[in-house]
Amino acid sequence: MQPEEARPRLAALGFAPADVEVLAEHFLAAEATGRSGHGLARIEWLEGWDEIDVAAKPQRIVADEGYERWDGGSALGYLTLAAAVAAQLTNPPERARLVVCGRTFPTGMLGHWVRSLAAGGLVAVLAATSPRRLGHPDGGPKLTGTNPLAIGIPSSDGRPVVVDVSMGSVTYGDVLTGAARPEDLVPFGGPLGHKAFALAVGLQLLVDALTPDEEFGAVLLVARPEADPVPALRALAGGVRLPGDRAGS
Amino acid sequence: MQPEEARPRLAALGFAPADVEVLAEHFLAAEATGRSGHGLARIEWLEGWDEIDVAAKPQRIVADEGYERWDGGSALGYLTLAAAVAAQLTNPPERARLVVCGRTFPTGMLGHWVRSLAAGGLVAVLAATSPRRLGHPDGGPKLTGTNPLAIGIPSSDGRPVVVDVSMGSVTYGDVLTGAARPEDLVPFGGPLGHKAFALAVGLQLLVDALTPDEEFGAVLLVARPEADPVPALRALAGGVRLPGDRAGS
Repeated sequence: MQPEEARPRLAALGFAPADVEVLAEHFLAAEATGRSGHGLARIEWLEGWDEIDVAAKPQRIVADEGYERWDGGSALGYLTLAAAVAAQLTNPPERARLVVCGRTFPTGMLGHWVRSLAAGGLVAVLAATSPRRLGHPDGGPKLTGTNPLAIGIPSSDGRPVVVDVSMGSVTYGDVLTGAARPEDLVPFGGPLGHKAFALAVGLQLLVDALTPDEEFGAVLLVARPEADPVPALRALAGGVRLPGDRAGS
Repeated sequence: MQPEEARPRLAALGFAPADVEVLAEHFLAAEATGRSGHGLARIEWLEGWDEIDVAAKPQRIVADEGYERWDGGSALGYLTLAAAVAAQLTNPPERARLVVCGRTFPTGMLGHWVRSLAAGGLVAVLAATSPRRLGHPDGGPKLTGTNPLAIGIPSSDGRPVVVDVSMGSVTYGDVLTGAARPEDLVPFGGPLGHKAFALAVGLQLLVDALTPDEEFGAVLLVARPEADPVPALRALAGGVRLPGDRAGS
């Protein structure tokens, strides 16, 4: 699929123009940063669904100063996260807010969402669940999703640091395309794979414990920064690339 | 050092009885779970300090429903985290609260603190910074601490899941005791060490961005659970050990 096909094909699925824009922006950003598993192939994937409730709108069902809960309902998770992120940028917390998103799947590249928040001046931490594909490195049943953790930190130099790490040694997208074998999808770390497994279990249970329904979800923390540590870390790093730096930047 | 020496030697340093209890409980719990780098050797380490302000008390300087800020001042980080944890158990958030602890070092085994919170019914996530000992896996300057992330999840079966993962391939304690070489202390993950490095950078900047001073700190999220996912995960896991399960349990 060519980039220029993204918007027409999403529109053909029935999405409203604003939702087409959110989805196309996400998939094209994934392609631009080499994460094609989260990219245009997802449009073909959506085209293969039996049914998509393109009219569904995520609902914010609790809105306190320090806590929000969103329910994605039958909306695509991308749209729920986009709505939750936009709401934080429009009405940021005075200090900090936990934003719990139930029934939110798929969530795409988590780094995309925390990058938006960091670009808007908010510290952000985001975790999300997905189908169980990781077991204990010693074997046994699949217990957790690949469960990425993303962290976005604003910077006065205009270049936020964006971390987006999944706990898998390869992506499920790599398995789907044949670039990796199913048995390669294990917690990363080799002999220390129990560390990534533990993180995957912790993030799985964090999301599951905070969402009242039993579906996939996402947990987002947003906070106002009290300090500006990125420029000093960049200076200390010298030429070492920091997470989220784009090629050539 | 024998376990029964812990309390008298801490008292001899000048700590008040309640603080002796907090510190001894922490060090003895570390020994009991095989984390001797966080155990009784720390008493000898404290005995070697030029000065310890044993009278210092951590201060809670902001106390909102969804946000607290603590300042450890010159108190030991253990005591600041103990006070912050106790305050959450005494006055839990209605839904969620971010607890930022500035000037908080050392923090010991982060799993110890989230275990207390989970045992008291609260979901907890805790990160803390420590001296810069990890560089990029490809080389360059030391940029981050080993920066553990701990997650505690309550369970109706009385056995919380407790994750406590540092981003280093070995502990600094292993280096100090000669069990590992300094050059072994790199981000864990081998060829995927950039993942653990990215997590270490993200957690470093998270703590640094949320604490207004430039010293070490800790960031704790506490929330009331909306669901009880641990028993079902244990059932799915069968005989597979979940993080934080104690030997023999």
